[in-house]
Amino acid sequence: MSRVTLPIEKGCEELVLELIKLWGADAIRNSDGTKLNEFFENLDAKVYSTYFPAREDQEWPRQNPDEIQHQALISERYTAFDDTLEIDPMAGYYKEQLELDPETVDYWQVFDRTTGELVTKENWTFDGNVVKINKVTKFHEYTVNFFSKQVWDTTHMYNHMTNNWDTDKSIPYDAVFDKTREHIYAHLKEWCERNTNINVVRFTTFFYHFTIMYNQHAMQKFGDWFGYSASVSPKMFEKFKEEKGYEITLEDIIDKGYYNNQFRNPSKVFLDYIDFMQKFVSTLAKVCVDIVHEYGKEAIMFIGDNWVGTEPYGKYFKNIGLDGVAGSAECGVDIRMVSDMEDVRIKEIRFLPYLFPDTFYEGNTPHLEWEYNWMRSRRAILTKKVDRMGFGGYLSLAAKFPEFVDGVTKSTNEFREIHENSPNEDCIKPDYKIGILNSWGKIKSWQANRTGHASGVKENVSYIGVLEALSGLPYNLEFINFDDVKNPEKLAEFKVIINVGEANTSFSGGCNWKDEKVLSAIREFVAKGNSFIGVGDPSATCGNGTYFQLQDVLGVDKEVGNTLQFSRYMKQNEEKHFAFDQIQGKIYIGNRNKYIYSTNENLEILQLDKEFGVEASINNYGKGKGVYLQGLPYSVENTRFLYNIIRYVTNDLNKKYVSDNIYVEAYEFKDYIAIVNNSAESLTSNITGLGNVELSKYELKWIKK
Amino acid sequence: MSRVTLPIEKGCEELVLELIKLWGADAIRNSDGTKLNEFFENLDAKVYSTYFPAREDQEWPRQNPDEIQHQALISERYTAFDDTLEIDPMAGYYKEQLELDPETVDYWQVFDRTTGELVTKENWTFDGNVVKINKVTKFHEYTVNFFSKQVWDTTHMYNHMTNNWDTDKSIPYDAVFDKTREHIYAHLKEWCERNTNINVVRFTTFFYHFTIMYNQHAMQKFGDWFGYSASVSPKMFEKFKEEKGYEITLEDIIDKGYYNNQFRNPSKVFLDYIDFMQKFVSTLAKVCVDIVHEYGKEAIMFIGDNWVGTEPYGKYFKNIGLDGVAGSAECGVDIRMVSDMEDVRIKEIRFLPYLFPDTFYEGNTPHLEWEYNWMRSRRAILTKKVDRMGFGGYLSLAAKFPEFVDGVTKSTNEFREIHENSPNEDCIKPDYKIGILNSWGKIKSWQANRTGHASGVKENVSYIGVLEALSGLPYNLEFINFDDVKNPEKLAEFKVIINVGEANTSFSGGCNWKDEKVLSAIREFVAKGNSFIGVGDPSATCGNGTYFQLQDVLGVDKEVGNTLQFSRYMKQNEEKHFAFDQIQGKIYIGNRNKYIYSTNENLEILQLDKEFGVEASINNYGKGKGVYLQGLPYSVENTRFLYNIIRYVTNDLNKKYVSDNIYVEAYEFKDYIAIVNNSAESLTSNITGLGNVELSKYELKWIKK
Repeated sequence: MSRVTLPIEKGCEELVLELIKLWGADAIRNSDGTKLNEFFENLDAKVYSTYFPAREDQEWPRQNPDEIQHQALISERYTAFDDTLEIDPMAGYYKEQLELDPETVDYWQVFDRTTGELVTKENWTFDGNVVKINKVTKFHEYTVNFFSKQVWDTTHMYNHMTNNWDTDKSIPYDAVFDKTREHIYAHLKEWCERNTNINVVRFTTFFYHFTIMYNQHAMQKFGDWFGYSASVSPKMFEKFKEEKGYEITLEDIIDKGYYNNQFRNPSKVFLDYIDFMQKFVSTLAKVCVDIVHEYGKEAIMFIGDNWVGTEPYGKYFKNIGLDGVAGSAECGVDIRMVSDMEDVRIKEIRFLPYLFPDTFYEGNTPHLEWEYNWMRSRRAILTKKVDRMGFGGYLSLAAKFPEFVDGVTKSTNEFREIHENSPNEDCIKPDYKIGILNSWGKIKSWQANRTGHASGVKENVSYIGVLEALSGLPYNLEFINFDDVKNPEKLAEFKVIINVGEANTSFSGGCNWKDEKVLSAIREFVAKGNSFIGVGDPSATCGNGTYFQLQDVLGVDKEVGNTLQFSRYMKQNEEKHFAFDQIQGKIYIGNRNKYIYSTNENLEILQLDKEFGVEASINNYGKGKGVYLQGLPYSVENTRFLYNIIRYVTNDLNKKYVSDNIYVEAYEFKDYIAIVNNSAESLTSNITGLGNVELSKYELKWIKK
Repeated sequence: MSRVTLPIEKGCEELVLELIKLWGADAIRNSDGTKLNEFFENLDAKVYSTYFPAREDQEWPRQNPDEIQHQALISERYTAFDDTLEIDPMAGYYKEQLELDPETVDYWQVFDRTTGELVTKENWTFDGNVVKINKVTKFHEYTVNFFSKQVWDTTHMYNHMTNNWDTDKSIPYDAVFDKTREHIYAHLKEWCERNTNINVVRFTTFFYHFTIMYNQHAMQKFGDWFGYSASVSPKMFEKFKEEKGYEITLEDIIDKGYYNNQFRNPSKVFLDYIDFMQKFVSTLAKVCVDIVHEYGKEAIMFIGDNWVGTEPYGKYFKNIGLDGVAGSAECGVDIRMVSDMEDVRIKEIRFLPYLFPDTFYEGNTPHLEWEYNWMRSRRAILTKKVDRMGFGGYLSLAAKFPEFVDGVTKSTNEFREIHENSPNEDCIKPDYKIGILNSWGKIKSWQANRTGHASGVKENVSYIGVLEALSGLPYNLEFINFDDVKNPEKLAEFKVIINVGEANTSFSGGCNWKDEKVLSAIREFVAKGNSFIGVGDPSATCGNGTYFQLQDVLGVDKEVGNTLQFSRYMKQNEEKHFAFDQIQGKIYIGNRNKYIYSTNENLEILQLDKEFGVEASINNYGKGKGVYLQGLPYSVENTRFLYNIIRYVTNDLNKKYVSDNIYVEAYEFKDYIAIVNNSAESLTSNITGLGNVELSKYELKWIKK
């Protein structure tokens, strides 16, 4: 009985107890909506309880409507057909969630979006409903940046609408106000005093929700798990000015309507604002954690919902003093997002699928989903451990699916076995590090996500694919940004730099590739004997006669219309390259539609397509290598392909414990080799240094050294 | 016997004579390599002869090696791994075609291509073989811009290598030198005097070849039918400065290595250089034409080869005083490139396929190729006439394919019939014009080509598709640029503006879409009741919160990574739209890979794809309409789709003479309606205002009004 947390469920006490025993749970928690009853309180298990600092007491916002939270919004775009123009700022928004705040009008901004110019305040008025622009340029487009009040907490609203709850709106109040801040502390104290049976307070989370806006039809309009738009207010802007010494305006948050979303290269002001908020939030969160500790309880935090400012890879996070974090996971990327955190004692995973009727319905096969999730997650856990696992939702639903119950029983046992056979260690890795380079760097380590999970869109499917492959490969990884690249000491820690992403996004890096210092640093890095692996649009930005600014390192460039008059002559390698070792046929690079051409006659072309040109290649550059891949969606084949490439460029071809079957991976520990079968078939595989090993479907086998 | 020109062939006199009679030829011409013999001289037909002003006398360049032509080149890109860097400018070029000219070193330029900065002359030297840069920034890339001598005429070289000719190299000499210019005139006079039997001098063409460079393996490296790189020289740069009052440098021609190719937005200097060259060339060409006229002969010009400066849609072309032009054609776009020319009396087409063994080999079916070419060309001829037609190559080859001979017999008869039934008129069209908007405008009317023909790459397949469809639709068309858009009087001539192309190319217009005057002009144009049809990336350029700068007019925008955090809700029209009238199923938009989303809830979405979003839509904007199509490769279906769209947006739904079968089109003339069957099947079609008409395969039927 250890390392597992399960949700309780009223009315199904015996059944829950059975699963608690079967899966070896040593902790229980109440979910949203369920309250602990006596039966569970008397169990021999730690008790977790969810706590919402910014909305726990719904009397407060009703008594103090001036101290609720704000959100920064931009109106729709309107073209001036006449000499004046009227704009209803709220048109297109869901008024049950967001309400115009006329008190904040001094902070609003009107922009001419055809020229990008700010319209001076003399030229517009607000009558309580609409903004009237009195002097417009005909046929230019205009928008209004403004503050709205958040009259419904986003997660509460989502649950309310999704599950047809019939409750009063939960309104989030703002810790930026002294009175409210003190109330948050006082309420937490009082709660701790009252809830003597609770061992662990699970903050969900602290003060500000990530950005979500709904449209006039009550459907999601915009969502960004990393968004700060719901943390701002006139008061917060004042605090920012005090702290940073200069003014921030709505446009710095609105960002022309893009809201600084995670695909955008961050501006200096926005990075400053993140820094400011992380400091602000961590200071207040520390007070909350201290209160919890005063009452002899542990404090953990859920990574999500009101997590703004608490990014665990940010530099103020450790100051909060949390005992642990809980994250949701379905794959290796999700696991590593938690397991790579520093300064955290308890790392807990709430696995997917959630035990909800959308998965657990008659005729469905949730055990297959679980097998796939566990297969991907297990690779990552073997590479870098988390401490605890569990589920959310209704155990009574899961109990109806015996194959799922069996699968989880096996997995929880494996999870404990991993900890028993390799206590306090991760698998053995080479000394050097692999760097994942993008515009955000460390702060968004392992967070390629659009929402909470590593489920992507076609624009970041290769980023997720590369990370998922790496999440279970025996390497030390670090996420770096372009400042890190320009720091020679930092760069010296790496042997391989990987850049993956679409052009003009924060993933590939956009205009950072116009910085000659960045280009020179990477060129020198490779020329010295290291490697640069580019996937998708690495170093892409128009200028100076190229598109991939590192076309000399990569040996390829992308045809974006400037060089169509050149003839191209390219030939694929005739011999099978080491990169394809153990792989049958071609690798799948996903959906692309531009042409990649060689810029170096001596380029090794591993895979060439008639219509789309070079799909995979390796270029010798000085003493090092530049690798190009058009795309790399996640698959078992592509995982092995990337592993082969890394071993090839790091000159590590004769590695121990490599299998001859792409579905089998081995992890070396101090006393054991752990071998996993990532397929649903029984198989025998030869492993270098070990010989033949037989494995049943999805088996994890331990071989004593 | 009229309107047809055929090539002669020695040793096949009787066979040639037979085809001359069968196809009704009234003119013959010598091809490259064949000379007229007595048999043909005595025929009752006009005699054409090819003449090459810049290389007719190969004694001249051998006696005057200082007066041969130059070409502007850029070296390969080299990264500095050390404190100095040596560059061999000619590495990567074919030295049989181009030779370094050390005499021109004062004009050379060395660039740091990592920063875009010019390296000052003090920091590099040239030792006769390599450029040595003495002060470099380590890990920056460098290139050399330089002049080479053209020691082999490009077309002569091509023919030599393709047909294994065994002749001495033909060297082009440069009319920029006074002595050479006078020799060109004198040689032409002497030639005219000598060749009394020739009736028509077919200039092929005048002085400067379009840009073609070969690589070190004697394969084409770069080619641009519109390129001016082979027209420049130190002397020409001096003349430019005298004329325009400012200096031009190699970089203005080299253009970072893109060589100002047709996909690039032209710079002001490059446009000035084109203007300067057109004036220079037309002045000299006029002297040549006057000489030909003095000898009682006619002068026509082939559009291609040494045609630099003679663009027929340029403003100096008419000054040359030519009697006619000859162009090569395989489709409607090619036909209209010739037939839309103004100030030309004889417009002649040399059709494809060329009568060469690459098409006329045993087992091939050249008649099918001919039927397809003639089908597309005939639509264009019915819309806007050319005066003569003919073929090139070997008639003896064609004679071996009786179905081809029959097909051409039918076509030549149809061609004469068109002229007989509608003398001196084109088909009846509405008053207003449709404008094709791109960065080049009028000067490149109908010239979407990469080489001589409208065969494209995937980057301009929709541009060609739209033009091919329009080439045979009854509308007045004009090609316009962004200056025309900003001229209200000019814009008032149009009812529809079409913009087709990939982002950041001259076809869509690139940074021209950052000009607020352009945006306002188009918005006003549409709001007043006109229409804007955008295909591919219309108005695309990043900025101001959008990608399609006319997203308000179009009602759609393209996802390029900035707005992925927005949710999208779109629905296709439930009822079949008029645009699909007579069309079965979906239209094919070609290969695209980005997502197009609606920016207007009221957008009419005609075709919606799950993965790629809006494929076709119509947006109401003021009193007019914005139409968006993701792509429109040429097909009979897409031709009808575009015709339907144009009729819909111009409110012309009940047009007369529209068929109920997409393969049938009707053209109205003063006395007749011409009806074509564009399919290889017999069919009956109902035509509005006419009733049912029966047509055999590919038939052209005339119905008296």
